[in-house]
Amino acid sequence: MATEKTLSDAFYEALKDVYFAERTSVRALKKAAKAAKHPELKQALEKHGEESAEQVERLQQVFEIFGKAARGKTCEAIQGLMAEMEEHLEDFKDSEASDAVLIGSAQAMEHYEIARYGMLKSWAQQLGLKDAADLLEQTLNEEKNADQLLTELAESSANQQAA
Amino acid sequence: MATEKTLSDAFYEALKDVYFAERTSVRALKKAAKAAKHPELKQALEKHGEESAEQVERLQQVFEIFGKAARGKTCEAIQGLMAEMEEHLEDFKDSEASDAVLIGSAQAMEHYEIARYGMLKSWAQQLGLKDAADLLEQTLNEEKNADQLLTELAESSANQQAA
Repeated sequence: MATEKTLSDAFYEALKDVYFAERTSVRALKKAAKAAKHPELKQALEKHGEESAEQVERLQQVFEIFGKAARGKTCEAIQGLMAEMEEHLEDFKDSEASDAVLIGSAQAMEHYEIARYGMLKSWAQQLGLKDAADLLEQTLNEEKNADQLLTELAESSANQQAA
Repeated sequence: MATEKTLSDAFYEALKDVYFAERTSVRALKKAAKAAKHPELKQALEKHGEESAEQVERLQQVFEIFGKAARGKTCEAIQGLMAEMEEHLEDFKDSEASDAVLIGSAQAMEHYEIARYGMLKSWAQQLGLKDAADLLEQTLNEEKNADQLLTELAESSANQQAA
């Protein structure tokens, strides 16, 4: 028998998940920027950290449009990604490969967010929440750009440095 | 003081991580295919499950090219993603939103793999492991196609069904 749960419930659950994940990501990016060696990478991570803080605010606006108070829900995926990043930072710190490894960890987090924001944007459209969909799309594009920039930094310098 | 760790060590660690993740993903896709309601979604997940089993074999070839025995290393990220998928399946089973939620979970796993295979391919190129890079790129393209197909299935039917 079908329960009463709808896309609207799924949207709310996912919003809480991403709100937790995005706030975790702000902390992760600060840690990553501190650990980065190449000045351009450090700057890119700092900039994306600031962008992520704005993305948290954008999520608060989405909660408001949806008519619910902003709150997070423990996201095991981002916790696993964060634990992996910390382990990699520890294992490769002071090595020539540290920036390459750091970029890889940051991109894994970016891709989690790309998946989640893509889904949320598409659900918001389906639910007729146009303003929410626009805000989510704005963040989605920022995440994709951050991922692309990290690929460029890896291939233009960090990977050679590491090899 | 710089340790001796190089990109080659990072590559080997990441390979073990992805080997674990890919085998987890084969199990996750079987579960997801079983839970899927829409026949087209069920078929897409079954097909990608078979593809993932081939991707596991491809990783074994990469280990061989790299000159190491294939072995996995617990990947906390994929465990977190799998735990989230199971929780969502349970929360939304029998609801109209179940396929939409299922697609979202599967795409989060795909994106973890897209991030990891993208990084591994780029590292293999830097390490001069051309054959390994080709194998990793082949898998990367399959993951991107699977993700794209899931987006299409979400937007063409699952999301409407859920709303």
